[in-house]
Amino acid sequence: MKLPAPLEAVVDGFQKLPGVGQKSAQRMALHLLKEGPEAMNHLGRLLQDAADRVGFCQTCGAFTDRPVCSMCEDPQRDPSLLVVVSEASTVLSFERAGFFKGRYHVLGGLISPLKGVGPDQLRIRELLHRLEDRRITEVVLATNPTLDGEATAAWLARILEPLGVKTSRIGLGLPIGSDIEYADQLTLGRALEGRRPV
Amino acid sequence: MKLPAPLEAVVDGFQKLPGVGQKSAQRMALHLLKEGPEAMNHLGRLLQDAADRVGFCQTCGAFTDRPVCSMCEDPQRDPSLLVVVSEASTVLSFERAGFFKGRYHVLGGLISPLKGVGPDQLRIRELLHRLEDRRITEVVLATNPTLDGEATAAWLARILEPLGVKTSRIGLGLPIGSDIEYADQLTLGRALEGRRPV
Repeated sequence: MKLPAPLEAVVDGFQKLPGVGQKSAQRMALHLLKEGPEAMNHLGRLLQDAADRVGFCQTCGAFTDRPVCSMCEDPQRDPSLLVVVSEASTVLSFERAGFFKGRYHVLGGLISPLKGVGPDQLRIRELLHRLEDRRITEVVLATNPTLDGEATAAWLARILEPLGVKTSRIGLGLPIGSDIEYADQLTLGRALEGRRPV
Repeated sequence: MKLPAPLEAVVDGFQKLPGVGQKSAQRMALHLLKEGPEAMNHLGRLLQDAADRVGFCQTCGAFTDRPVCSMCEDPQRDPSLLVVVSEASTVLSFERAGFFKGRYHVLGGLISPLKGVGPDQLRIRELLHRLEDRRITEVVLATNPTLDGEATAAWLARILEPLGVKTSRIGLGLPIGSDIEYADQLTLGRALEGRRPV
């Protein structure tokens, strides 16, 4: 099928989105075309508007369309608990889960000697600055349980220790609903380490 | 999960696309966000560009980014055979199938007394004008086998009869790979009517 070039470009653009194959991309582009140029134009404007207006919170680094995000400004949220994550998108996973009512700090990456990322490239100075607020009593290190994520958490724990703030690592172990028989060795090991009295 | 408003607008926009639910729409928007504002902006521009530049062929009514589409201008295509369809998107289905080497004419709808669509609102004058080209010897009526599609085909057949051009209806019957046991009565009836000598 030979589409007009500008439409082919839209199909290619859609295909770069996660979970969108060639057929779905074509179907999406043709749907917009059938709806008329205004519908296509409208979605284009929404994307450009979001690209222009969504940035990172000055305080915590989460996605926001304001200088400081609603989570940092919400007086209802617990100011004593800070969850440290590597990516702004991880904040959304916590928010989707919905039970956490403290605040976040986004590092903007992980320390990785292999990828040439050192602590200076991350928002660690900002984290230390925030910890001058004495209301923060506990920092939960919620980087991924990967090589770089573990190393970053360990590095942060060492840096934070002299500051007198309680530092914890997010719980590692068996995911809820999983089968112990199918758990990998490393997970099982961490699950045993992380055992808690009943 | 509370997303920044402009991002929420993008999620809503994606959700209007066929086959895209709330979760996929969120995943698509977050993916673009992670890629950075330039990626989001780029897809936005592609959409606006397509909205601006893709229109209908002056001759046949198919989608094109030029005054006359490549199919109408291609000298390799058979000028004697014209397939009449209701929607520009149907042309793409034929092109995707890839075997048809004649030309198209898009009506831009179907005659429908119930919806208040009469022949005057369709590109029928343009069709009659094209038939003045004596190279066209056969018109295949390829409107959908629905109430309005059948009525429009019947109406066109009557209009075209005095012009001395051969008029045919696209084959109706059992779809390839289907099971006769599961065919509905109407399809089975049309399949019998449409039987051909082996």
